[in-house]
Amino acid sequence: MLMSKLLGERFKEKPADAFLDSHIFLLRGGYIRQVSNGIFTLLPPAKRISAKIEKIIREEMDKIDGQEVLFPVVLPADLWKESGRFESVGSELLRFKDRTGRDMLLGMTHEEAAVHLARSEAKSHTKYPFMIYQIQTKFRDEPRSRGGLIRVREFTMKDAYSFHTSQEDLEKYYARVLESYKTIFRRVGIKNVLAIESDTGMMGGSGAHEFMYLSDGGEDSIVICEHCGYQSNMEVADSVITEYPSEETDIEEVYTPNVKEIDDLCSLLGVEPHETMKAVVYLRADNEKPLVVFIRGDLQVNEAKLKKVVKTEIYPFNDYEECGLCFGFIGAYGLDGVETVFDKSLEHCKNLVCGANRENYHVKGISVPRDLNIDKFDDIAKVNDGDRCVNCGNPLVIKRGIEVGNIFQLGTKYSGSMGMTYTDQNGQLQVPVMGCYGIGIGRLLACILEDSHDEYGPIWPYAVAPWQVHICMLNPSDERVREAGEKLYKELSQKYEVIMDDRGVTAGVQFADADLLGVPYRVIIGKKNIANGEVELTSRDKSFKELVKIEGVMQRLDDLTKAVK
Amino acid sequence: MLMSKLLGERFKEKPADAFLDSHIFLLRGGYIRQVSNGIFTLLPPAKRISAKIEKIIREEMDKIDGQEVLFPVVLPADLWKESGRFESVGSELLRFKDRTGRDMLLGMTHEEAAVHLARSEAKSHTKYPFMIYQIQTKFRDEPRSRGGLIRVREFTMKDAYSFHTSQEDLEKYYARVLESYKTIFRRVGIKNVLAIESDTGMMGGSGAHEFMYLSDGGEDSIVICEHCGYQSNMEVADSVITEYPSEETDIEEVYTPNVKEIDDLCSLLGVEPHETMKAVVYLRADNEKPLVVFIRGDLQVNEAKLKKVVKTEIYPFNDYEECGLCFGFIGAYGLDGVETVFDKSLEHCKNLVCGANRENYHVKGISVPRDLNIDKFDDIAKVNDGDRCVNCGNPLVIKRGIEVGNIFQLGTKYSGSMGMTYTDQNGQLQVPVMGCYGIGIGRLLACILEDSHDEYGPIWPYAVAPWQVHICMLNPSDERVREAGEKLYKELSQKYEVIMDDRGVTAGVQFADADLLGVPYRVIIGKKNIANGEVELTSRDKSFKELVKIEGVMQRLDDLTKAVK
Repeated sequence: MLMSKLLGERFKEKPADAFLDSHIFLLRGGYIRQVSNGIFTLLPPAKRISAKIEKIIREEMDKIDGQEVLFPVVLPADLWKESGRFESVGSELLRFKDRTGRDMLLGMTHEEAAVHLARSEAKSHTKYPFMIYQIQTKFRDEPRSRGGLIRVREFTMKDAYSFHTSQEDLEKYYARVLESYKTIFRRVGIKNVLAIESDTGMMGGSGAHEFMYLSDGGEDSIVICEHCGYQSNMEVADSVITEYPSEETDIEEVYTPNVKEIDDLCSLLGVEPHETMKAVVYLRADNEKPLVVFIRGDLQVNEAKLKKVVKTEIYPFNDYEECGLCFGFIGAYGLDGVETVFDKSLEHCKNLVCGANRENYHVKGISVPRDLNIDKFDDIAKVNDGDRCVNCGNPLVIKRGIEVGNIFQLGTKYSGSMGMTYTDQNGQLQVPVMGCYGIGIGRLLACILEDSHDEYGPIWPYAVAPWQVHICMLNPSDERVREAGEKLYKELSQKYEVIMDDRGVTAGVQFADADLLGVPYRVIIGKKNIANGEVELTSRDKSFKELVKIEGVMQRLDDLTKAVK
Repeated sequence: MLMSKLLGERFKEKPADAFLDSHIFLLRGGYIRQVSNGIFTLLPPAKRISAKIEKIIREEMDKIDGQEVLFPVVLPADLWKESGRFESVGSELLRFKDRTGRDMLLGMTHEEAAVHLARSEAKSHTKYPFMIYQIQTKFRDEPRSRGGLIRVREFTMKDAYSFHTSQEDLEKYYARVLESYKTIFRRVGIKNVLAIESDTGMMGGSGAHEFMYLSDGGEDSIVICEHCGYQSNMEVADSVITEYPSEETDIEEVYTPNVKEIDDLCSLLGVEPHETMKAVVYLRADNEKPLVVFIRGDLQVNEAKLKKVVKTEIYPFNDYEECGLCFGFIGAYGLDGVETVFDKSLEHCKNLVCGANRENYHVKGISVPRDLNIDKFDDIAKVNDGDRCVNCGNPLVIKRGIEVGNIFQLGTKYSGSMGMTYTDQNGQLQVPVMGCYGIGIGRLLACILEDSHDEYGPIWPYAVAPWQVHICMLNPSDERVREAGEKLYKELSQKYEVIMDDRGVTAGVQFADADLLGVPYRVIIGKKNIANGEVELTSRDKSFKELVKIEGVMQRLDDLTKAVK
């Protein structure tokens, strides 16, 4: 490739509205251009990187017996009605009608399509287990697309679906996929990816891992114990709840005018937050009734955990007027006619302050075991930085991460609801157990960049670099420089992917552009060195720089790349 | 790959509603499954073939300096409003609104997206010419999907767009693409593809070729002169119009009660169809007014040619009551107040019958040069089988074809309407000239099958076959057979893509399935031959069958495949 012909303008200025390094450099280096909110065109360098990532993923999927297929982007709504997701998934699922008025949608994930295919093609146990995968465009009508390729609406994804005759077989295969994913992330050259336990979310199922690239720019929170290695997504993380023993006292109502916040209450009464009981009100999506959650005043509600407990989507509750609840003064003592959930932090508390269920009053001295008749305490508390690890008791740290892949044990959620069966060895019909496994190609590309760059641009790992060698002809109008450039371009292209700067622009512009393209090795041909028959060989990560005879460039590159190939 | 694990059931019965051989075998062989009308999932064998076709296309596109990009599937309607196609294209363009209510569409072709990208990235003449291409999913809400992968709604397409600083440069590049396409079709192993001149249709522009695979099952008509090599799509085809000299006579009105058809008129008056003038009425799409077309009675109107003449879409005219035209008796003599078009077949006719513009009357003896005052005759006649070639005068034949690719000289239709410019050598802003070039991957796959199969299934060309060697273990329970199978599977897999039938089903089932998978070479391991240390080596096209020592199989395959690789 000649730089003079490469499509894509590069520029120096930090683009407005771009804050993540990957977003900034993908724009500045001419890798991506936005077409609509969260919808991008990939320019040649990004397309080349994507193709290399995809090739590595294909090789690893094939190694774990994956069979590549291609599902449609546009799916009939009927399939999603079978699984129940046409109704249950929100407006991120893009629904529309085709010319005949039939309900259709854009696939954002393909469990339904996979079951649709597999249920007619795998009717005997002898076919099991098997895994099918595809690399294909998906659309998710994301309300808050951001960060370039980090959170988009249209994206290319590798998604895989495995089918098994038992949970044990699924778990065995799941472990293989987990290892396969580690290999993929190692091969594409990204470090700092953790496989952590996660919530199964809208996918349903019995177990899941997210592969999190640790990054301050990430939207996900991860709870880590650096002592014992405990790692968990905040959504499912646990920690030891500190207990504060206290004595039972009598119940007493106190006048607390206009005191609706825990902090104000503590100041007024001279107590600590952990000596209070907080009420948080949600609206249940399924029956549209309020749900009052009680938790110790020093803790926060983990809504992902709460959703699992109440088995429905929940929303913030805003209908203060009509519900009969006394907002700001809601308490568990004497509260009737509304669904409640109690966090297990409250189980042994004996001297708490809580709302009195009447305006401007609280109650002191509530003993949960004595005064409240609670069947069941649930774990719905959020882990805080510094909480103690449930495994080893050491302090937990909370880090930010970006999800670059996920794997789920789905169980029979989709195969069951969509009526998929196979005949087992005894001639009986059985429902297969499923797993599903995703990697977003574009997001992974962006995270590789996040993981490997300097202030001048990306430092692409060798395995995914758009080109491997970048030749700079500093003075292409000089005959010897041009001759050497053309000779090296031709010679090196036999073994490497080479891009050559033939534009005749200044060395400064050439180097700045080369930094933005992030090609691992650079051959610089200048007037002075060429007089000695030499060129400069450098690496993009600026770790070395040496003069090499023109005839020796290929050999030196071979030596250098031996380790990384 | 082991047959026991390959996803996809194969079956013997001809599927209902499948008439084309490619459709039948793609279903019977477990290549495709319909998900919705015109929307298919590709199973592993079809995905493998597609990947090979795509690889060949990529290599050829790169050879003509193509740069691969990836445009979005979902596009904002704004881009198509800029080009005018949001309004001008019919309901095959799938339009919808995203969650914010913004008009969006599914890309069915990407001229707008290409200009959107290129106009911000190619502002200087030094970048020109350049070509960008992608291989990507498209959606066209086709009212009549049919024939399996021949006419679908969702499809994978290679589409390419070139940008030039002059029409001459475009034509030079266009010629390179034409050769590149011939190479692609040769490499994927399809014969009987013709590059023929075609109409530019909704793409606009100044010149176009369609690559037509000749097939009786095709929907397109192609006019061919087998003598001089003239080839043309029916839509733009010309032929010599046979002239029938006649003498001028006087005009005479004749009573022709209820005679509205040319044949009836000829019977009644004892004349030949070429002695009549036919009127055909259309509705212009732009001003919704009627358009009366006159043509000699023995010829038909070619609507594609007519559209070019009147520069608008045309529809059948149905509003018989209100328009003031005397249907069945419309004639050019004495007709006023309506737009007319005259075919050049009429130019020299001197004794014609035509309608009298009053119920139940015709006029005889019309001499076009004498009686009608016509400014301009246009070529709007359809070619008939047996018409004479305009180049050499020999008879033309009409064949059926399926379009597997097309190339267009677009000119400035999109660059102009979308405000794309570059700065030329003199610092002046100029509008670039464009070309666009498409190949449908799935349709090409189906046509390769149409072109190469027997009554038992596909005979895949070596370059695109899903696997290259198919091993049949006739009795896998026999130890020597199994050992030989496993040894050969391992050995041959080092060099070839191998599928092995390990199911232990009958030889009949194995051979029938192998025929449906269409793999070029087959190694048959049976009890009898293995006793002599031999296996049978055959080809899918049944052109040879020989016994080979187990140790010699690899060498023999190397010899056989040397020619086809």
